[in-house]
Amino acid sequence: MQIKVIRKILEANDRISEQLKNLFQEKKILVINLMSSPGAGKTTLLETTLTDLRKEFNMAVIEGDLQTSNDAERIAATGAQVIQINTEGGCHLDGSMVLEAAGQLELDGVDILFVENVGNLVCPAEFSVGEDFKVTILSVVEGDDKPQKYPLIFAESRVMLLNKTDLMPYVDFSLEKASGFARSLNPAIEIFPVSAKTGEGMDLWYNWLRSEAKNKKR
Amino acid sequence: MQIKVIRKILEANDRISEQLKNLFQEKKILVINLMSSPGAGKTTLLETTLTDLRKEFNMAVIEGDLQTSNDAERIAATGAQVIQINTEGGCHLDGSMVLEAAGQLELDGVDILFVENVGNLVCPAEFSVGEDFKVTILSVVEGDDKPQKYPLIFAESRVMLLNKTDLMPYVDFSLEKASGFARSLNPAIEIFPVSAKTGEGMDLWYNWLRSEAKNKKR
Repeated sequence: MQIKVIRKILEANDRISEQLKNLFQEKKILVINLMSSPGAGKTTLLETTLTDLRKEFNMAVIEGDLQTSNDAERIAATGAQVIQINTEGGCHLDGSMVLEAAGQLELDGVDILFVENVGNLVCPAEFSVGEDFKVTILSVVEGDDKPQKYPLIFAESRVMLLNKTDLMPYVDFSLEKASGFARSLNPAIEIFPVSAKTGEGMDLWYNWLRSEAKNKKR
Repeated sequence: MQIKVIRKILEANDRISEQLKNLFQEKKILVINLMSSPGAGKTTLLETTLTDLRKEFNMAVIEGDLQTSNDAERIAATGAQVIQINTEGGCHLDGSMVLEAAGQLELDGVDILFVENVGNLVCPAEFSVGEDFKVTILSVVEGDDKPQKYPLIFAESRVMLLNKTDLMPYVDFSLEKASGFARSLNPAIEIFPVSAKTGEGMDLWYNWLRSEAKNKKR
């Protein structure tokens, strides 16, 4: 009984996700579903990215949180268009939330739309929100075993950003171990060690975005 | 429809949780439901606690993870009794999983049972596993806004452990802000800044455990 209901929810989500994909395809918008644990640095990564690439791309953000509009305010301060979704206890975004939020954005002319999911390494991985790619941030402070312990999200992601590399001297974290676990789940995953705070390593992430935004315009 | 099903699941869980409470009451075992984001330091806190208090208490651990028995192996190395639950994708433990695991432990003589939940600041808060107290760890690296953004788990917890204080010099984290947000949700919450890695601040946590273990024996 429980499984049947969950399957129905997933099927309903897949239908809405297809609608979103068609909308974003028509408008040639690259859509990134950005996921991580709470506090791994999703919003800081977006602030840095939106600031550094603002001359190259028109970017918009859909923010997902249980409560507060703190993150949307931080994003708005960069000058980007932003809509906040409050899930009121819900542990992930879904297609219908993103469809409603997208209707409140001016999508014409947008090159890249970032959907910042609820901070959670489990549930968000199961629900497509019409994205081209899932991107998961793992902060080096969380430990190099996390891809092994939370396999689905890393198996589903095109990119793993290893964030907070500025804290590497103070924690026990092996880039090789974390990368090895992620690649064993997902041989094609791109892995970029970055510090969204200091800017270190962000160029590889930006080059990946540039390349995928260009592919999307074709 | 969806809401009705979720309510049924919660009601079924509450019944099993009552069964567990009776079992733990009868055996006078203090039960702690330990929750946090992935990588906030639940297992390290347990390793330190189990080692430092092993002469005072008989302690056992139920480990919850999506996959792997890594954490149970770390706990077993301290000499404590441990059972690993793999939720295979499930985002939290529930009463029935803990009931099954408890049946595989030798509970006679145990003073304190720690249930280490799946790393997640959202879903675990909704499901009682027969605990006396929920205890949530927030790592200072995650940011001081987390109680405001994930209110339920902090509202439900008797203790908030602010872990990884050894990293305080390298991050922007205000103990006052984090504590203020948590107390506004939950005026009775106990707040202990600790470093499970260096041992700093652990005495207040131990004193709280000693006091509650004693209360439970009455």
